[in-house]
Amino acid sequence: MKKTDVVVLGGLSGITAGLSCRRHYPEKKVILIRKEGTILIPCGIPYIFGTVGGPENNVIPDGLLEKNGIELITDEAVDLDREKRIVTLKNQEPIQYEKLVFATGSLPLIPPIPGIDKKNVFPVKKEFDYLKEVLKKVDEAKDIVIIGGGFIGIEFADECRKNRNVNVTVVEMLDKCLQLALDDEYCDEARVKLEETGVKILTDEKVVSLNGKDAVESVQLASGKEIKADLVILGIGCLPNSQLAEKAGLELGFRKGIKVDRLMRSYTDKNIFACGDCCTKESFFDGKPSGVMLASIATSEARIAGANLFSPVHHSCGVISVFATVINGRAFAVAGLTERTARENGTNVVIGEAAATDTHPGGMPDSTMLKVKLIFAKSTGILLGGAISGGKSTGEMVNVLSACILHRMTANDIVMFQMGTHPALTSSPIAYPIVNAACKAVLDIQGYR
Amino acid sequence: MKKTDVVVLGGLSGITAGLSCRRHYPEKKVILIRKEGTILIPCGIPYIFGTVGGPENNVIPDGLLEKNGIELITDEAVDLDREKRIVTLKNQEPIQYEKLVFATGSLPLIPPIPGIDKKNVFPVKKEFDYLKEVLKKVDEAKDIVIIGGGFIGIEFADECRKNRNVNVTVVEMLDKCLQLALDDEYCDEARVKLEETGVKILTDEKVVSLNGKDAVESVQLASGKEIKADLVILGIGCLPNSQLAEKAGLELGFRKGIKVDRLMRSYTDKNIFACGDCCTKESFFDGKPSGVMLASIATSEARIAGANLFSPVHHSCGVISVFATVINGRAFAVAGLTERTARENGTNVVIGEAAATDTHPGGMPDSTMLKVKLIFAKSTGILLGGAISGGKSTGEMVNVLSACILHRMTANDIVMFQMGTHPALTSSPIAYPIVNAACKAVLDIQGYR
Repeated sequence: MKKTDVVVLGGLSGITAGLSCRRHYPEKKVILIRKEGTILIPCGIPYIFGTVGGPENNVIPDGLLEKNGIELITDEAVDLDREKRIVTLKNQEPIQYEKLVFATGSLPLIPPIPGIDKKNVFPVKKEFDYLKEVLKKVDEAKDIVIIGGGFIGIEFADECRKNRNVNVTVVEMLDKCLQLALDDEYCDEARVKLEETGVKILTDEKVVSLNGKDAVESVQLASGKEIKADLVILGIGCLPNSQLAEKAGLELGFRKGIKVDRLMRSYTDKNIFACGDCCTKESFFDGKPSGVMLASIATSEARIAGANLFSPVHHSCGVISVFATVINGRAFAVAGLTERTARENGTNVVIGEAAATDTHPGGMPDSTMLKVKLIFAKSTGILLGGAISGGKSTGEMVNVLSACILHRMTANDIVMFQMGTHPALTSSPIAYPIVNAACKAVLDIQGYR
Repeated sequence: MKKTDVVVLGGLSGITAGLSCRRHYPEKKVILIRKEGTILIPCGIPYIFGTVGGPENNVIPDGLLEKNGIELITDEAVDLDREKRIVTLKNQEPIQYEKLVFATGSLPLIPPIPGIDKKNVFPVKKEFDYLKEVLKKVDEAKDIVIIGGGFIGIEFADECRKNRNVNVTVVEMLDKCLQLALDDEYCDEARVKLEETGVKILTDEKVVSLNGKDAVESVQLASGKEIKADLVILGIGCLPNSQLAEKAGLELGFRKGIKVDRLMRSYTDKNIFACGDCCTKESFFDGKPSGVMLASIATSEARIAGANLFSPVHHSCGVISVFATVINGRAFAVAGLTERTARENGTNVVIGEAAATDTHPGGMPDSTMLKVKLIFAKSTGILLGGAISGGKSTGEMVNVLSACILHRMTANDIVMFQMGTHPALTSSPIAYPIVNAACKAVLDIQGYR
């Protein structure tokens, strides 16, 4: 039997957990076990179908593992004896560990719709060969239907239209696409951008069956509509991949995620940690369970887990949820709460909004109009969330908001925010929209004068 | 005699001060007085000479003033009676005020070099017609010498070479260009980028005279070298434009800036405020006088001054100094202290560095390598500064660092920073270089384990 200090099970966040462990405990031996020989950048998966051209261009290189002395074993962990601290593999010898990290990610939700098992119906699995096959099918398809208008569904729709003469229809159950992520006005802006690419969007529509002989031929909606489809992509979300953990008797929490504390240590076993999509998360704002699944959160948790394995160092403060997407060249990003989620919480909010070009003067090359919306708590002035749409700088601007939220900056603080500006890179200092949005809100904060 | 509640004297930050005042005190009448009919975006001035094509494309529109009920008077304030609270104008009737704001900016330093008054020697004044004339001369020039290798000099050099077959030489007194702003390795990287455009750079060279008959013909250096020049641009810095304030008996401080407190109120007269380049600043880090002049700081101070005119609201926390530039398409940005300035302060520092592509996978279009350097205090782990070079997102990434510095985040906090990531907009979550630079530094923070 093989022996090691640390076993990490899993993909993306497994790499980060391993690196973090080796950085903090260079004397410890780390083995990373995963089923897939080659693993993919998860957020890059939609871009396989357009911009980057194939899964081979979206691979996470393993050089970092080797360089940092982490052994990689390509195999499937099929059993876990927590008492003896032994992981059983499908093909190779078992491994005894001192500490174990679950970084097993998530598996796509397969809705119980009649016909879901027909040919050419594809959930978004994060597997190289599988996605190579899906890409081939997408290239041959004439009528693609995407079920689910969240980020994954929308990004797939946008990418599938690139350089292809194919009909793409998105079917979304809610009133608007991206409704769980963005406020209404941003959902509407995103819809316009996506429709400009020729993608058809059906909202407030429920899929009742997938029809066809062997292979899917159409998608039947509850409204009575039937949409032609020779390929269906399921983008309706994921669930924690926690089967092995459950089998090993670890306590599961919200949506069957492995229950972890703020050290990323499992509730059940002090030698077992977890990070990423496979484990539970708490909201930064109210401590309640959060179902958000993001690669960025996964790696953040992995840094915490890896550092804490042999002695607690880092404590998670809960999940803010910061993300960005690009639809037909326009970026949309959110940090923290939307106005909708804040109001649903019962929070009395003050909204500040501003717009400006992302260069100055606006006549600089590639100038794009930025829109910023900030959501503050009326009682305290603390920033609860913000949304931005704009150009390439949007992705880092939303990280400015993340820093402001993490440190509970108030509207007053943000009015005085010391941003750097440059003609080619940012809005003008007069117009800088994060600050100007706060300027508009600050007077409405309770007790401000 | 005309009467008003508030008189603002000046340009860019005058607009922001006026808007801030009107937002906080909508009942107050505000008059903005400035010499120039049309004012320019100050940081856009170098780009007049290349990218944007002329001063007419770099104008600050006055629509905001009108929309917010601010009266604009184009005239020169020539006298100030503080006791009677009256501003005397050159051409129009005097104006009595309740509160007055100096936002008069800075004037270019003219070094006492023999020949400095020859024709075709141009300091960088922020005046429309003047710059239009300089642009004409630049278009006709064959040999341009730029004295001063700070941001302004470097940006001018880069822009003057765009679409012009002209020799451009930068002469810098210090060892390296940008040495007061960047650490050595970034100065070196910037030099390589600038030299790629064909600009010649002479460092460690002092100008002793400008030679020629009426017009400049050459630049004489202390080393004995003589450089051919039919046009010379002076980019060696600016001094506060505080003559009228001095004449009115206001106390001046560091480099003759109008001395102000943290409310942006003058030391001498509680009815007079100042903001921007014309007034003194304190460093966020040690409270000592700071000579940094940035449009972004000016507008930040203007927001404070305008809000505080009739009742204190905002307090400046001192100047962090956050800025960015672009040299031959590559962006360079700094927030807070450099390693050099931190060490010169006597601070025991820990450095963390990381690099990553600014998209993921790196094969996404327009992918650029980002380099990040973070400077932490060894004793506390608090972030003191950071430098970034990279692509378009650099300008907002450095604002992430500004937020982290403002709230005194530590290496430990930044390890757990919750960044959003997206393939087209940011580095991958595994590689996100702000976080990874902190990961490398955190173990060296004193008492960390």
